[in-house]
Amino acid sequence: MSEATKTLRTPGGHLMVLTEGDDLFAELTALALRADIPSASFTGFGFAGKVSFGFFDFDKRDYDPATFENREMTGINGTLAWKDGKPSIHAHGVGGGPDFKVSGGHLLGLVVGRGSLEVTIAVHDTRLERREEASIGANILRLPGA
Amino acid sequence: MSEATKTLRTPGGHLMVLTEGDDLFAELTALALRADIPSASFTGFGFAGKVSFGFFDFDKRDYDPATFENREMTGINGTLAWKDGKPSIHAHGVGGGPDFKVSGGHLLGLVVGRGSLEVTIAVHDTRLERREEASIGANILRLPGA
Amino acid sequence: MSEATKTLRTPGGHLMVLTEGDDLFAELTALALRADIPSASFTGFGFAGKVSFGFFDFDKRDYDPATFENREMTGINGTLAWKDGKPSIHAHGVGGGPDFKVSGGHLLGLVVGRGSLEVTIAVHDTRLERREEASIGANILRLPGA
Repeated sequence: MSEATKTLRTPGGHLMVLTEGDDLFAELTALALRADIPSASFTGFGFAGKVSFGFFDFDKRDYDPATFENREMTGINGTLAWKDGKPSIHAHGVGGGPDFKVSGGHLLGLVVGRGSLEVTIAVHDTRLERREEASIGANILRLPGA
Repeated sequence: MSEATKTLRTPGGHLMVLTEGDDLFAELTALALRADIPSASFTGFGFAGKVSFGFFDFDKRDYDPATFENREMTGINGTLAWKDGKPSIHAHGVGGGPDFKVSGGHLLGLVVGRGSLEVTIAVHDTRLERREEASIGANILRLPGA
Repeated sequence: MSEATKTLRTPGGHLMVLTEGDDLFAELTALALRADIPSASFTGFGFAGKVSFGFFDFDKRDYDPATFENREMTGINGTLAWKDGKPSIHAHGVGGGPDFKVSGGHLLGLVVGRGSLEVTIAVHDTRLERREEASIGANILRLPGA
């Protein structure tokens, strides 16, 4: 399926439906470039074949990662902005397995599993940048004047 | 209370406030029919008297269910489309009990408990259908051209 | 940083970016007053230095609280209305620690930790009030006619 058929223009932005094997971050990046999205907020849910979460270690200035397979993602929340001329995604997610126990955190990556992942994207009209906050080593979304 | 007083038209769609005994899927179905919603994305939170989650078993091609009582639903994410001329809802949810441990998954049903459930519905202007994907036995939201 | 630089007007409402030490409820209250928001729905995610959840005890008619530190909030869902002339916030949230296990419930308060918290606010154009439902001792969002 071509990239364009994975998304639909809506009054508020875009609706994205991903299927098995699709990479969430790659698809959001492609959409941001294709539609030249100044900035956006998104929510999503669906089935992840593989999902990686991270918890930020401020001493190491990096994320301690963990990867889970076959999770029903119950909620993904994120924003889309730009950094160094490229789309910059920040997202968190939570999801459960067959025992309905859930785990989650900062989303490092997600590949859709058997089934689908539906993402609703609300587009904003101001171009926003993410910049690294030197004091903490993490990227922060900058609003105009901030 | 009449059905119409459970929802409010907003610039982006509808706001729904359900109270004890209301069935989330029945109310969303009634709204989709009443307002002739082409398709929509929704988010919700509130108190569930009874909530059922499912985890899809691809061998059985059905959901293994589990039911929980009195859960503070911290997040519900879903979409509304059509299938065989009837509203078709797909939603996931997560919620916790008095120990603040949470569980969640694909939402099979939810009846509101003592308190309320608030749902925010963003309406899209393209009529969308869900169709069963024969290879996996699950319904997939179809975008135009897909 | 001044309050105004923490929020950006978007086509659908506002985008808020909070940083370390910011109090989520205080910032939402200030925005509601400053922008005279009739009512709104919001979603958020980010890093909480301290977050308090409550589970409603209907006998005591109050929340049993629990406080967690340094949680990656994976999802916050809430609404903004008015009560006795003041902004009234109702929100639920869920988040995880370094082990990616998550906990959540009714949100009693949240102070941002090292990093940021991003909140997307969809503004509605009808002024809504929350009123205490005497029979259960909890505040309920009232829609016109309800």
